Amino acid sequence: MKGNLRIDGQRLLKRLHALGQVGAIDGGGVCRLALSDEDKAGRDLVVGWMRELGLSVTVDAIGNVVGIRPGTEDGPPVMTGSHIDTVRTGGRYDGNYGVLSGLEVIATLNDAGITTRRPVAVAFFTNEEGARFAPDMLGSLVYVGGLGLSGALNTVGIDGSTVADNLTRIGYGGPAPVGAPKVHAFVELHIEQGPVLEAEGFTIGAVEGVQGISWTEFTLGGQSNHAGTTPMRLRHDAGYVAAGIAVEARRIARDLGGDQVATVGALTLSPNLVNVIANTAVITVDLRNTDESRLKEAEARLFSFADKVAEEEGVTLARRPLARFEPVAFNPDMVARVKAIAQGFGHKVKRMPSGAGHDAQMLARVCPTSMIFVPSKDGISHNVREFTEPDQLIAGADVLLHLLLELAE
Amino acid sequence: MKGNLRIDGQRLLKRLHALGQVGAIDGGGVCRLALSDEDKAGRDLVVGWMRELGLSVTVDAIGNVVGIRPGTEDGPPVMTGSHIDTVRTGGRYDGNYGVLSGLEVIATLNDAGITTRRPVAVAFFTNEEGARFAPDMLGSLVYVGGLGLSGALNTVGIDGSTVADNLTRIGYGGPAPVGAPKVHAFVELHIEQGPVLEAEGFTIGAVEGVQGISWTEFTLGGQSNHAGTTPMRLRHDAGYVAAGIAVEARRIARDLGGDQVATVGALTLSPNLVNVIANTAVITVDLRNTDESRLKEAEARLFSFADKVAEEEGVTLARRPLARFEPVAFNPDMVARVKAIAQGFGHKVKRMPSGAGHDAQMLARVCPTSMIFVPSKDGISHNVREFTEPDQLIAGADVLLHLLLELAE
Repeated sequence: MKGNLRIDGQRLLKRLHALGQVGAIDGGGVCRLALSDEDKAGRDLVVGWMRELGLSVTVDAIGNVVGIRPGTEDGPPVMTGSHIDTVRTGGRYDGNYGVLSGLEVIATLNDAGITTRRPVAVAFFTNEEGARFAPDMLGSLVYVGGLGLSGALNTVGIDGSTVADNLTRIGYGGPAPVGAPKVHAFVELHIEQGPVLEAEGFTIGAVEGVQGISWTEFTLGGQSNHAGTTPMRLRHDAGYVAAGIAVEARRIARDLGGDQVATVGALTLSPNLVNVIANTAVITVDLRNTDESRLKEAEARLFSFADKVAEEEGVTLARRPLARFEPVAFNPDMVARVKAIAQGFGHKVKRMPSGAGHDAQMLARVCPTSMIFVPSKDGISHNVREFTEPDQLIAGADVLLHLLLELAE
Repeated sequence: MKGNLRIDGQRLLKRLHALGQVGAIDGGGVCRLALSDEDKAGRDLVVGWMRELGLSVTVDAIGNVVGIRPGTEDGPPVMTGSHIDTVRTGGRYDGNYGVLSGLEVIATLNDAGITTRRPVAVAFFTNEEGARFAPDMLGSLVYVGGLGLSGALNTVGIDGSTVADNLTRIGYGGPAPVGAPKVHAFVELHIEQGPVLEAEGFTIGAVEGVQGISWTEFTLGGQSNHAGTTPMRLRHDAGYVAAGIAVEARRIARDLGGDQVATVGALTLSPNLVNVIANTAVITVDLRNTDESRLKEAEARLFSFADKVAEEEGVTLARRPLARFEPVAFNPDMVARVKAIAQGFGHKVKRMPSGAGHDAQMLARVCPTSMIFVPSKDGISHNVREFTEPDQLIAGADVLLHLLLELAE
């Protein structure tokens, strides 16, 4: 009988729509920066729903909210969750979809009168986006003990106020011990935020892990000179070295293949005039791979190329790491369960890495974890045009339902 | 006896210093934007010197100033000259050196009691730099009939006022007919504004012509996507195409060799964020060559490469010509005279092109023309650190003296 259980798609879509009205912006998007007044309104709405569904709600000192549905036994709950904060020009699905699908699972269990063996919990974590406070995934990082509470509370945001100030102001600095409850297993349902599932015709992604990230900023120092009067052999062109690094980054991604990606998203020349050789160039390179040794290989090749070209051009090079995270591998059994359940529904399933960071990668430090992806139209995210088809949203929530049911028995 | 004639170096340096005090800025530089109050003060100083030296001074409707020293015969004068406007953070030598060396030649002829057969004229032309009004070399362009007077007068500057407004305001819209007097031959003495003479140990450059210039702006339209979640094969990265064009521009210059130069001085990405693939890139390419057919070859190769890479990446490309001038060849007899006179003084002389634009290239349309270059320390120009050694300044002025003497006989 449980095998035939399905979530109520219209009820899920209705909640997504209602939460999308809080902090709504032109074009169908949402602006609910972490711990803002809009975030408070969103939190109040979701907490109200949790209470309506009979969950016992706890709020910890960093503002993480957990709603628990008791099982027949005590002990660590099976948890699902994500976040409800957004970037400044965010969409309706990023984060919200995972949290509200968790609530929809609870509602479905309530309606069916099912009591699981283990408790089932739905959580949303503070400041996942990092659009107001750095680092991103702050709440889940604190939850798993990766960052001390006092350091997190003292974090100063883009407007000069601290996390603690804002938690107090919106009334979400709670009494629950940080890191409670312990978690039996964690699963996060999320939109892909990339184009792969749509482009390749898959409905569900069984996420095997999160790519390791290496962000490097290169500052190149050359000499400004006249573009007409300076022979090529006498140039120290910072812009040329930067362009060379950008082209090499692409070559590295192509040569390494697999999951390797490389992006030069930011490049600034100075003085940035048509007829003046650039004396300064600042360029960032974003490298990602699911395999730490391959990521290191990409870094080594990039750094060595950059050093060589800069030296040949007589340009100084300073290298600054902006971010470096090792890849996270999710629990293979959990990944296999996602795949099996989705295939049982007749969906095409792709095992894939996540190229973006998620709260799940923090929870993976303390319990078996995996993620479920649904397609993002045109791969667009962090944008008001973010969109996933309703039947795909419903498909993902049904997979979540059955995975939680399996894990809670 | 004339062969032993030398200019008075100290007098030349004193005038350079005095003019350098007008509009002086920190670091030893000068700011005298065309037709500004500072430019008026500089003009007044130079016109005063012209009158003291006995020249008959005329000012035309675009503000070009010509001071004429009569010869034993009437007819078109042999003319030297340059400009006294500067860029916003200019040096003391660019333009000013040529004009004041002309006055020093006049003073030397006066002191020696020499009357030449032809008249000798010293001119300075309006808005050579183009830092306030476009195009640059405006005054000399109007002088030779390359641009109509009314169009030039209606030119609107960076502050919204017109050339006509400012000529009236500073009192330099004069009654002389534009293009008068006709010129027998024109020679411009100028600092190199490049590093070649210094780097190769030459004192004098005999300038054979001015490089042709091709400025192109490419606007590339791709798609903004997440740097982590977008596989390489699904990218439309405008920044990558721009970087590829920049690297190809260097390759073209290297392959064509000779005088060919290629510069990417300006490159702007949007949104210019570490982890977002650029949806827009705007890049300029500055190509120069003394040979028009080679310049066309460089353009063709660049455009074809850009089209190919943009198409492969699925990025749109729009190409906009920002400037295009064919190379100018100076009069071979005049160039040979510069070389012979300088060698007669024992100087090392290099035949070379000018990579920058000068008033002389406009005068070359109407009379035999050449230029004399002296070294620029480290090739620096349009900068307060612009510098040429006093003995090099004096050497150049002595070559000018003897060239004018030859041409005026």
